[in-house]
Amino acid sequence: MTDAETDNGNGEFALIDRLLKPLAAKTPAALGLTDDAAVLSPTPGRDLVLAKDAMVAGVHFLEDDAPEDVARKLLRVNLSDLAAMGANPVGYLLATFWPEKLPRDWIEGFAAGLQKDQDEFGVGLLGGDTVRTPGPLSLSLTAVGEVTAGQALRRNGAAEGDLIVVSGTIGDGALGLLALKGALVGLDEDLQKKLIDRYHLPQPRLALGKLLTEKATACIDISDGPLADIGHICDESRLGAEIEWERIPLSYAARQALAQNARLRDVVLTGGDDYELAFTLPPAMEEALEQLATESGLALTIIGKMTAGNDVRVFHEDGTELTLDTRGWQHF
Amino acid sequence: MTDAETDNGNGEFALIDRLLKPLAAKTPAALGLTDDAAVLSPTPGRDLVLAKDAMVAGVHFLEDDAPEDVARKLLRVNLSDLAAMGANPVGYLLATFWPEKLPRDWIEGFAAGLQKDQDEFGVGLLGGDTVRTPGPLSLSLTAVGEVTAGQALRRNGAAEGDLIVVSGTIGDGALGLLALKGALVGLDEDLQKKLIDRYHLPQPRLALGKLLTEKATACIDISDGPLADIGHICDESRLGAEIEWERIPLSYAARQALAQNARLRDVVLTGGDDYELAFTLPPAMEEALEQLATESGLALTIIGKMTAGNDVRVFHEDGTELTLDTRGWQHF
Repeated sequence: MTDAETDNGNGEFALIDRLLKPLAAKTPAALGLTDDAAVLSPTPGRDLVLAKDAMVAGVHFLEDDAPEDVARKLLRVNLSDLAAMGANPVGYLLATFWPEKLPRDWIEGFAAGLQKDQDEFGVGLLGGDTVRTPGPLSLSLTAVGEVTAGQALRRNGAAEGDLIVVSGTIGDGALGLLALKGALVGLDEDLQKKLIDRYHLPQPRLALGKLLTEKATACIDISDGPLADIGHICDESRLGAEIEWERIPLSYAARQALAQNARLRDVVLTGGDDYELAFTLPPAMEEALEQLATESGLALTIIGKMTAGNDVRVFHEDGTELTLDTRGWQHF
Repeated sequence: MTDAETDNGNGEFALIDRLLKPLAAKTPAALGLTDDAAVLSPTPGRDLVLAKDAMVAGVHFLEDDAPEDVARKLLRVNLSDLAAMGANPVGYLLATFWPEKLPRDWIEGFAAGLQKDQDEFGVGLLGGDTVRTPGPLSLSLTAVGEVTAGQALRRNGAAEGDLIVVSGTIGDGALGLLALKGALVGLDEDLQKKLIDRYHLPQPRLALGKLLTEKATACIDISDGPLADIGHICDESRLGAEIEWERIPLSYAARQALAQNARLRDVVLTGGDDYELAFTLPPAMEEALEQLATESGLALTIIGKMTAGNDVRVFHEDGTELTLDTRGWQHF
């Protein structure tokens, strides 16, 4: 990286740099990681979108998660932030805090994971820093994207009566984490694996985000759970929301898990790690949803509507209200 | 911050957010830290410059350093990277990894230090992430700057015969660290304090960097020590360098320290943490140096020249060569 520290003999930092440098090869703005900073020429008429998410081993991922998956999830949660703003990803800067004695194949796997997702999402490494930590492996990534000037999606534009729509299926990420921790042992192993894969490898909804600019009145990615994240839209738009539980789109695996343990409903609503988009649309736009779904290749489901007030409330289809203990995401 | 995690009861994360939020108040691109990302409208005709440096408690700063100083140094080392590219700072993103039980006044001091330097350097917080770590306090900052398109200073443009120039005085940062560790006890306490201040609070040479665009053929900030950093210019320009030891500008405090222990010469040459600029100029530009010094308000000293070859060699004025054991920066 541009400012890798001097190695104290074991050559590990030189190895890290050797493994990371090819990741910048196709990104002219990275200047080959030779300088103090990256130099990016923005596209005229476009705004730059900058997101930064951090992850810590043992907090945001498990120590024995595959290094490829850790790298890809780190990149993808940041790309998901860009998706939520309707931005097109350009590149990223990466700070890595390495503990002593991380196996060489872990570092290689981490770099390979980044390379794989760079190819998939058309981004490249722009620069960063490589440092030593006496603590756990820690990662900080800054994703850079572009959006047509003035068209970035925000959280604050929803109006009373707007439809609340989510992409894909909800709850798989949080249920995947439970499966990973051995808490869903009654569930078919193939289904557990499907949920775990969703937890390890979120799909940033970049194509959908781009389609939503100039259409959605507010947008967010579901990282903290639908209630917390729709709550953010409510906070910024100074409104409330009503969600209908039976409308929330669930995968087959999630439905099977819920059939075995109805209390997992709270995990679906508050667990997070889905990285689907939640957005609001004026009711008159309802007919456009089908085309948006076709163009993005995603299921899009109306789960509720924006209301006066400032709470996110969840109802059954018979009108009775659900009560939940928690709202938001808890660390494992 | 945009993606602060849910608190588990103690309210510390809410406190951190409350303290960091005002830092974004004057930066429209931060969107009030309400969204998934910052949205920056680049100035037409300007390139964006992005630098990212990370710091870890116990590795890059001492656990009992003042939190204001830690915050300011974190920001300043990144601004120094922008200075080395000739860029004007715009703002920054910040990822903070907080250990349990950091005292409230530490967090307050950290935010106050950032506010102080934001005012001094005209930058604002753009966004970031706040996470928990079981390890030491860790910090990652991404600084964003702008430079006229195509004019960013690079390391790779030096030509054989170019003059090597440094700003300010060299060695104070590394000697300050030694003083902080009690290794310069023979030195007058006021002088020790001067050196320690240089270590704690580097001065990013932003005005000089901007003046050097279209003048310097290569530029770098001295973070790893003059030999290592001039070595980076050599590597990228595919040249060597000859430095004359007696020309290296030393502060009064550094000269006194060297008078007491001549072996500290190696610390001056390889210690780092100066955050002065080292740059190369065509010999014909020598006469412009005085005006550059006047306009930047900094002493500018020619310490050597670029040569064929690929080594950085240091000579006495009588022509004898110095030999050094190390080249570059070692962790404390």
